[in-house]
Amino acid sequence: MNFTIQNVLIATHDDYATVDVQVVDSKIAAIAPKLDVIGAVFNGSNKLLLPGFFNAHTHSSEMWQRGIMSAFPLELWLAELYDFAPLDLEKVYLSALGTAVETLLSGGTSVVDHLVLIPGQELETIATANRAYQEVGIRTFIAPLIQDESLAAGMPSGESPQNHEPYFRSTSATLEIIEEAVKKFHHPDAGISILVAPTGIQLCTDALFTGCIELSDRYDLCRHSHLLETKAQEKLAQEKYGCTAVEHLNQIGYLSDRTSLAHCVWLSDRDIKILAETQSTVVHNPLSNLRLGSGIAPILKYRQAGVNVTFGCDGASSNDSQDLLEAIKIGSILHNVTDLDYQHWITPRQSVEMAALGGAKGLNVADKLGSLTVGKQADLVLYDLTNLSLLPRTDPIGLLVLGRPTNIVDSVWINGQQIVANSKVTTINVDELRQELFKHSQWETKRKSSTVAQIETHYRTVMDLPDSK
Amino acid sequence: MNFTIQNVLIATHDDYATVDVQVVDSKIAAIAPKLDVIGAVFNGSNKLLLPGFFNAHTHSSEMWQRGIMSAFPLELWLAELYDFAPLDLEKVYLSALGTAVETLLSGGTSVVDHLVLIPGQELETIATANRAYQEVGIRTFIAPLIQDESLAAGMPSGESPQNHEPYFRSTSATLEIIEEAVKKFHHPDAGISILVAPTGIQLCTDALFTGCIELSDRYDLCRHSHLLETKAQEKLAQEKYGCTAVEHLNQIGYLSDRTSLAHCVWLSDRDIKILAETQSTVVHNPLSNLRLGSGIAPILKYRQAGVNVTFGCDGASSNDSQDLLEAIKIGSILHNVTDLDYQHWITPRQSVEMAALGGAKGLNVADKLGSLTVGKQADLVLYDLTNLSLLPRTDPIGLLVLGRPTNIVDSVWINGQQIVANSKVTTINVDELRQELFKHSQWETKRKSSTVAQIETHYRTVMDLPDSK
Repeated sequence: MNFTIQNVLIATHDDYATVDVQVVDSKIAAIAPKLDVIGAVFNGSNKLLLPGFFNAHTHSSEMWQRGIMSAFPLELWLAELYDFAPLDLEKVYLSALGTAVETLLSGGTSVVDHLVLIPGQELETIATANRAYQEVGIRTFIAPLIQDESLAAGMPSGESPQNHEPYFRSTSATLEIIEEAVKKFHHPDAGISILVAPTGIQLCTDALFTGCIELSDRYDLCRHSHLLETKAQEKLAQEKYGCTAVEHLNQIGYLSDRTSLAHCVWLSDRDIKILAETQSTVVHNPLSNLRLGSGIAPILKYRQAGVNVTFGCDGASSNDSQDLLEAIKIGSILHNVTDLDYQHWITPRQSVEMAALGGAKGLNVADKLGSLTVGKQADLVLYDLTNLSLLPRTDPIGLLVLGRPTNIVDSVWINGQQIVANSKVTTINVDELRQELFKHSQWETKRKSSTVAQIETHYRTVMDLPDSK
Repeated sequence: MNFTIQNVLIATHDDYATVDVQVVDSKIAAIAPKLDVIGAVFNGSNKLLLPGFFNAHTHSSEMWQRGIMSAFPLELWLAELYDFAPLDLEKVYLSALGTAVETLLSGGTSVVDHLVLIPGQELETIATANRAYQEVGIRTFIAPLIQDESLAAGMPSGESPQNHEPYFRSTSATLEIIEEAVKKFHHPDAGISILVAPTGIQLCTDALFTGCIELSDRYDLCRHSHLLETKAQEKLAQEKYGCTAVEHLNQIGYLSDRTSLAHCVWLSDRDIKILAETQSTVVHNPLSNLRLGSGIAPILKYRQAGVNVTFGCDGASSNDSQDLLEAIKIGSILHNVTDLDYQHWITPRQSVEMAALGGAKGLNVADKLGSLTVGKQADLVLYDLTNLSLLPRTDPIGLLVLGRPTNIVDSVWINGQQIVANSKVTTINVDELRQELFKHSQWETKRKSSTVAQIETHYRTVMDLPDSK
C-alpha cells in the first residue's frame, strides 16, 4: 500500500517539525513539508510519528501465568513456572496473539519471542506462534528457547556437589530441530526471522553454544540468550568456568554484533568492555529484574562504554504485562538512582532511540529499520497527542516516555501495511481473543509448587539466606 | 443513594469470595452471599470490588509541566519548575480536575493535594482546587504547601556560608492564611479536609512547624510534609540542626499518628525507629524518587519496623502521570532488589492494603475508610476483570497490581455516590476537560531555566560532582 501521512509531528535533531511522510512500496519514500499526495491520505494533525519499537525479549506463553507467580527470585520462580505450565498449541497461539496485541498498542512493531517449546512438538510450537504473529502482522523474530541441561543444573552447587538428571533430549537432536525451523520458517524479507537462542550459560553446554554459533554462521542468523540475570548465575559461572560468563562466551566466540543478551545485571567492568568490543547488544528488562529481585542492570555504564542497549518486556509472568512503553519508562528512570550525576541520565529522546534503533542494531537490521529515514522499511507508529494522558501539551516525546500513556496508539504500519487504525487492531478480532483468553482460564489463588518445596532449602543455603520461616 | 452490588468478587483473608454488597446511607451495610436487594442493583459478575485507594501525596498544578522537566535532581528540578510555573486560577482548576480524573480511573478515591499556592491568592487557590475536587466528587485532603524560607535556603551551603533573601511573606501571615482556610474549607464529614503542610525542613523554620503543630492540635488537623527526599536534604539537616531531620522533628513534636511524610528516602535505622514509635506514616512516591534520582526509600525496612506506608503519585511533573496503579506496582516491586530475601518482599495483597488502609491510617480515618468493612463509608472501586489487560484469568489482585491495567475501572462510588459508571466519569465532562487542557497549552521543547544557570555550579560543588560539561 502506498500512502501519505500529512501534517504530522516528527522529531528532528533536537526539536520537532511538521511534515508529510510518503510511503511507497513499503518503504519511506520522502519526508518533507507539503509533499504531493501519493496513495491513501492520513491526517497527522496533532499526532506524533515515530519508528516502531522492538519488544526485544519476551516469552509469549508466560502470559498464561501472569498475575499469579509467587514473589520469588528467578531460580525458584522458574521452578514454579514449569510446574504449572500445561502448554498446548492452542494456548501458544492465543498468548502469541495477546503478546503481539499488547506490544503493538504500546508502540512496538517487532517482537523477539524467546519461545518456550512444547517437548515433542517443537516445530509445531514454532509454527503456531509464527501463525499468530503473521495473522496480526507484527514483525517477528522467533528465538526458540533451547537448553541441554536439566533445570536443577541452573543453580550453583555451593559446597555440596549436586547430581542432575540428564536433559531429556540430546544436544544434536536439539540443534537438528533448530536447523529444521530455520529451513521452514526463516524468511526475513517476509518479516519472520529465526534466531539461535540457547537459554544461557546456566542450562547450556559449550557443545550447544558451539552448535548454535555454527548454525548462526551458516544461515546468517542472529543469536539471543539470557545473560547473568541473577547473582546466583554469577556464582554458577565461576563454578562452571572459573571465569565470568562473559569471558567464557567471548572465548567460545558467541558474542558478536548479531548477538543480543537479555538482562546483563551482574557484569563486571571488564565484562562490559568485552560487550563493547564485540558489539553485542544488551536487552534491558527492567520490570522483570525488579519483580524477580534480580538487581538493577548497570545500563548507564553500558551506555558510557558504548554498548548498544534496547528494551524488552520479558515474559508476562515476570512483568506482568507486555506494555513496551512501561518497560521503556522504568528502564530509563530506574538508573537515575544509580548515578548522582544527572548528566549521565537517559533523556526521553535517548530512550526512543534505544527502543527503536537500538532494537534494530541488536537484530542486525539497522540498515532497514529503527528510524524515520528515507529508504527504510515503513514500520511506523502514529500517536494521538490529544489523549488525556498526553495533556496538557508540553514535549510530546517527554509525555510519551515519562507519562503513563493510555490508548494513545492511533495507527501502526508494519512494512507499509496498516495493522492498527483508529486505535484498533484491524487484522484480528481482539474482542474474540479476549473471550478466548477468558474461556481458557480460571480465577486461581492458591497453588504450591512441588519443585520449589524440593529445592528451596538448597537455594537459601547457597544464597546465604537464613533458614526458611 | 442506597444500592446493592450483586455477585461480586471480593478478597477474603487469603482467598476470594463471591458476595453481594449492600450500601445504605453512604455506608457499607452488609457483605454476604445472596442478600436482599436494597436500592439500585449493580451486576458485579466478573468484577472485583476493592476499597478505594489514596493518592496520598501529589501537587496538582504540576500537571502543567509534565513531560517537559529536565533530567535533574530535586534541587535543580525545583528551580526549573518555579521558573516556568505561570499559575493562574483557571490552570489550578483544570489541573485539579485532571489529577482527580487520573486518580479515579486508576483506583483512587481520595487525593492529598500538597497544593502550591499562588502568592497573594492563597485562599483563592485553595477555593479553586476545592471546587474542582467537589465537582468531580473525589474525597479531598488539601494540604496547602507553605514555607517561610526562600528556595535557595533548601540547598546545603557546603563550606561557603550562603545568604538567602528572606521569604516574601512572614511566618505569622502564613499561619493566619492556613487558619482562615481551615475555618472556610475544613469539613471532613462533607469529604473535604485541610491539613497543615509545611513543605519540609529544607524551607521551614521551627516557628512555622510549631505554628502548624498548634493549629493541628487546636482544629484536629492532620500534618503533611516532605521528609528527606534527597541526599542534599540529609546534608542540610546536619548543617541546620546538628542531628537528623527526624530527630529534630521529633524533638519539636511534629511527628504523630496524624503525620504523613512524603518520600523518606534518606533515613537512618534510628530515624526509622522514631517513625515507628510516633506512629507516623510514610508516603512512598517511587516514580518521582526514580525520575529525580532521589534514591530508593527503604520501604521493606519500614514495614519490618512497623511503620505505616502508603503510596502517592507525587506531582505530575516528577512522575509524569497521576496513575495510582502504576505507583503501587513500582512502589511494590522496586524493593525486591534491595533485599535478597524474598520472604520480605511486598505481595500484591499487601500492596492493596497499603494503598487503601495504609492511606486511611495516615489521614486518621482508618475507622471510616480503607477496607470493605460493614459500617465504613462506601468509597468503592469496581474493576472489570474481562479487560484484555487482566486476562487470562489468574489471581485478580495479582493481575491488578503487577500487570499494566488499562481502562479497568468500571465503577467508583465515593461516600456512596457513584461518580464513575461504565468506565466514564459521570460528574464532569472529561472530553471538555481534555479540550481545555489542550487549549491552554502548546508543544514546547526548548526552554532554559535561568535559576538553574545561577545555582548549578554551587549544587555540583556541594554534591561532589565533577565540573559541568
